[in-house]
Amino acid sequence: MSSSKVIITAALSGSGTFKNQNPAIPYTPAEFADEAAKCFKAGARMVHIHARDESSGWATSDVEKIRAVCDAIRQNTPEMIIQITSSVGATPEERIAPIIAIKPEMASLNTNTMNFGFINRKDGQIVFEMIFTNTFAMLTEFAAAMRDAGTKPELEVYDVGGVYNTLFVAEQEGLFVKPLHYQFVWGVLGGAWFDLANMKRFMDLIPSDATWSTCGVGPAQFRGAFHAAVEGGHIRCGLEDNVTITKGVLAKGSYEQVEKMAKIVELAERSVATPDEAREILKLKGGPEV
Amino acid sequence: MSSSKVIITAALSGSGTFKNQNPAIPYTPAEFADEAAKCFKAGARMVHIHARDESSGWATSDVEKIRAVCDAIRQNTPEMIIQITSSVGATPEERIAPIIAIKPEMASLNTNTMNFGFINRKDGQIVFEMIFTNTFAMLTEFAAAMRDAGTKPELEVYDVGGVYNTLFVAEQEGLFVKPLHYQFVWGVLGGAWFDLANMKRFMDLIPSDATWSTCGVGPAQFRGAFHAAVEGGHIRCGLEDNVTITKGVLAKGSYEQVEKMAKIVELAERSVATPDEAREILKLKGGPEV
Amino acid sequence: MSSSKVIITAALSGSGTFKNQNPAIPYTPAEFADEAAKCFKAGARMVHIHARDESSGWATSDVEKIRAVCDAIRQNTPEMIIQITSSVGATPEERIAPIIAIKPEMASLNTNTMNFGFINRKDGQIVFEMIFTNTFAMLTEFAAAMRDAGTKPELEVYDVGGVYNTLFVAEQEGLFVKPLHYQFVWGVLGGAWFDLANMKRFMDLIPSDATWSTCGVGPAQFRGAFHAAVEGGHIRCGLEDNVTITKGVLAKGSYEQVEKMAKIVELAERSVATPDEAREILKLKGGPEV
Amino acid sequence: MSSSKVIITAALSGSGTFKNQNPAIPYTPAEFADEAAKCFKAGARMVHIHARDESSGWATSDVEKIRAVCDAIRQNTPEMIIQITSSVGATPEERIAPIIAIKPEMASLNTNTMNFGFINRKDGQIVFEMIFTNTFAMLTEFAAAMRDAGTKPELEVYDVGGVYNTLFVAEQEGLFVKPLHYQFVWGVLGGAWFDLANMKRFMDLIPSDATWSTCGVGPAQFRGAFHAAVEGGHIRCGLEDNVTITKGVLAKGSYEQVEKMAKIVELAERSVATPDEAREILKLKGGPEV
Repeated sequence: MSSSKVIITAALSGSGTFKNQNPAIPYTPAEFADEAAKCFKAGARMVHIHARDESSGWATSDVEKIRAVCDAIRQNTPEMIIQITSSVGATPEERIAPIIAIKPEMASLNTNTMNFGFINRKDGQIVFEMIFTNTFAMLTEFAAAMRDAGTKPELEVYDVGGVYNTLFVAEQEGLFVKPLHYQFVWGVLGGAWFDLANMKRFMDLIPSDATWSTCGVGPAQFRGAFHAAVEGGHIRCGLEDNVTITKGVLAKGSYEQVEKMAKIVELAERSVATPDEAREILKLKGGPEV
Repeated sequence: MSSSKVIITAALSGSGTFKNQNPAIPYTPAEFADEAAKCFKAGARMVHIHARDESSGWATSDVEKIRAVCDAIRQNTPEMIIQITSSVGATPEERIAPIIAIKPEMASLNTNTMNFGFINRKDGQIVFEMIFTNTFAMLTEFAAAMRDAGTKPELEVYDVGGVYNTLFVAEQEGLFVKPLHYQFVWGVLGGAWFDLANMKRFMDLIPSDATWSTCGVGPAQFRGAFHAAVEGGHIRCGLEDNVTITKGVLAKGSYEQVEKMAKIVELAERSVATPDEAREILKLKGGPEV
Repeated sequence: MSSSKVIITAALSGSGTFKNQNPAIPYTPAEFADEAAKCFKAGARMVHIHARDESSGWATSDVEKIRAVCDAIRQNTPEMIIQITSSVGATPEERIAPIIAIKPEMASLNTNTMNFGFINRKDGQIVFEMIFTNTFAMLTEFAAAMRDAGTKPELEVYDVGGVYNTLFVAEQEGLFVKPLHYQFVWGVLGGAWFDLANMKRFMDLIPSDATWSTCGVGPAQFRGAFHAAVEGGHIRCGLEDNVTITKGVLAKGSYEQVEKMAKIVELAERSVATPDEAREILKLKGGPEV
Repeated sequence: MSSSKVIITAALSGSGTFKNQNPAIPYTPAEFADEAAKCFKAGARMVHIHARDESSGWATSDVEKIRAVCDAIRQNTPEMIIQITSSVGATPEERIAPIIAIKPEMASLNTNTMNFGFINRKDGQIVFEMIFTNTFAMLTEFAAAMRDAGTKPELEVYDVGGVYNTLFVAEQEGLFVKPLHYQFVWGVLGGAWFDLANMKRFMDLIPSDATWSTCGVGPAQFRGAFHAAVEGGHIRCGLEDNVTITKGVLAKGSYEQVEKMAKIVELAERSVATPDEAREILKLKGGPEV
């Protein structure tokens, strides 16, 4: 499903990016709120949130810490759509708890179990790898919890199998509110690398009324955005995926990437969605909270 | 073959676009020279030329009229690469004669015989159609004439069959100087419409050391350019393919589209080739003429 | 649109294949009738007919000669679906005249203008080439004549552009009776060569309710059939496309290829359609003639 | 890399298929040897082995039990290539131990971590799911162990990401002996479903000198085989993947599927490789054991 309006999402922090890579990565609620406000001003209508422990900088599944981040963002930028990750936590219960408690308008729902490797870009070696666990049982339970919370899932797709997984799970009556919304994630070591054929595969395999966005690790971030801009997709950027604004130059913040994406959108003869348009496209419950 | 440098070509006039559609379409040598100079300033390094009869505006295969256009452009903008079409003329001999006589650095070489329809965009009806004749015999003879003139062919591909035709003809030893250079042309009624899968097909089927550019009729012009900008291709724009700068707004000239393409190139973290870089990428004989 | 039943078509003669290549190529009505009967027995439910001048062997557009071939086939094999080519004749009028006069159940409708080269397989050189003319005007007029004759068109696709041409023409209300039926033709020099990606392209681009078959020049004949057998398509074989039964061995007749195709169909766990099932799948008017 | 010879592999047992589904599933060394001999006679040149605990029928990583199966097969059918799975065991060490101990000519090497779901085909519900763990560390360690054992890995690919994983790991100098050999596995719930576009993706992404085979769960088994037969690939069948010989009919043994595959190969104008040809194509160390 194509649209003349583009929803730009800013993934402000992620779990694996730290201030030593880019000092603009937010750790505190105030930092998140500040980044979110700047991103909104630049055209972003959604933020994707991995909250952090303020002192250590590590990602946290602590509901109150996540709530503090959400509250800080809403106070400054009430129109921003908040999307919480469901990827952080030692157990499935820990991962989904913040969505159940906070009931955000959106949450990410990861669609396959996979290797997730982090590479040292200088020597191409893996510095750390983990198994990113997203079983069918979790897919179903997380989807049900999101439905009950009035939270729209963003289906994070890292590989073709992930799309098929969503099609299988979506056969369960009433589990998802239509249309499905997908995020195509490129370049995670363990998933699909960016390639026009892969992108067309994903576009062809999702339901025809689904909406989709693209993001990518490092250089795949802007590359995917160019294609999405002219093919009817939406765009995610942010320091979670890429700490630079151009090759070798750190971004001042996620907002600087949003500004660049907004230029791409404009050149592509589409326009940045208003908050209302974004909510209408994604069929969100509307408003920051019940 | 990808490059960090982008060669922007401006197709100034074409054969089927007239001043009543956009008054900036050049008919006279002076008009061509003026447009070419503005395009060069905006970043174009090549112009694609269909000369016109000054009074009627119709495309002409008259060698002296074409030479006058080339001379006028060279006088103003000596560094511009001139590419003459080989599509204009009642016979194959008429079509290739200007290349034999003028020996430009480049010339277009069309790669398949096809229907070529012109549509009224308001009602979707065909207003005129013709058969665009490009037999294997012509492909071979034109390629030989270009080789003998030191003219690099630009292989204009409108459909998958056109790519295969070039692969077949290129088996003839010594007919083409490598690397082959392709122009993917989207959206001619009778050829392939733009589609990511079609574009990937073309990219996959051409030789791995070939260079390629993209252009397209109407909206496919900028759409293809976005993809080319981040996938290592080159870009053609110009009033021949599209008379507007944005939906419903006439371009002030081909140069305004070149300016827009240069912005796309910059956002894509590539840069506009210098004239020398363009000649090096395309392996041209260098300089305007022997 | 997939089906558990496969319609095998036998292209008995073509225009460019002669007895000196394979003596089983039929020239006379009796030879056509004999080949058709053998093909029917082997599982073919449709014959594709290019009638021949009995003495010279050249393809003919003479209505009475074509009628004689059709009558001879019907007398022996009344259940066989007859498909007449609309490719033979010096003018569009000559090409469509037999369909208007004879009103067969099916006729071929070629979908793009193209180079059509004949290669000497020993040295890979072109021995003859022609332009195969199928303008948009012809596409429309032929389709209208077929509709008026109650004749179902088989849309012969040689390239991606051909599919787009049919989609464009099919926008004309009432021109085609649904579902459209396509024949994917592989390996004509001038069109698309066989390739899984090309085949998937054609399958993806045709309307979702369309039926399709595949045929191909030389080795592409059986190659395409294998894929069609398991992907829900139909199959055309016959001496028109390939004079051999296996590499280097002449087929005893088109029927020997039909026998082989029937084995492929069976191994693919589909079955050869009955004449009634074939007519139901293609939505033919039913019965040999009014 | 295509070949006129086809290597048929029989996956005799798998880990998740039991005698209550098809009594021909072998549990004892004698049963394995008997099935292997029948498969060899039918044209198979390789067996893929998951040994079983004789009493319970459960898959086992017990080296001596696996060795007993291998020995029994070799005694009856010394020319058969033996491929041991590296998927069975509670730890990576348990999984690779049999390869280190037995040094078979080939072993499977699974290429990505993924969900692996087992469906009840009647109601489409998941009856059991597990995480199939194949981290980058395991990929590297298993490959090194196989190299040291003189064992050629068969790279089992379930998704696009799996291909990329192998390309990443293969950058480590000396880890793999070329050419790489891939098995495309279709239809595991959690991986890629069969689709011509997916198959072409895999074919395009693997190195150009790599060899490949295809197998699939249930109906995807024969479907993939048809395509592989005419596209230059190799074929795996066997009760591990599919317990039937045709829809709803149990196979008498893996050998009955091998017989059917051999017919497909013959119709495709290729031929079943001899044991020597198979070892030459795969560049095996030759002979059953050092």
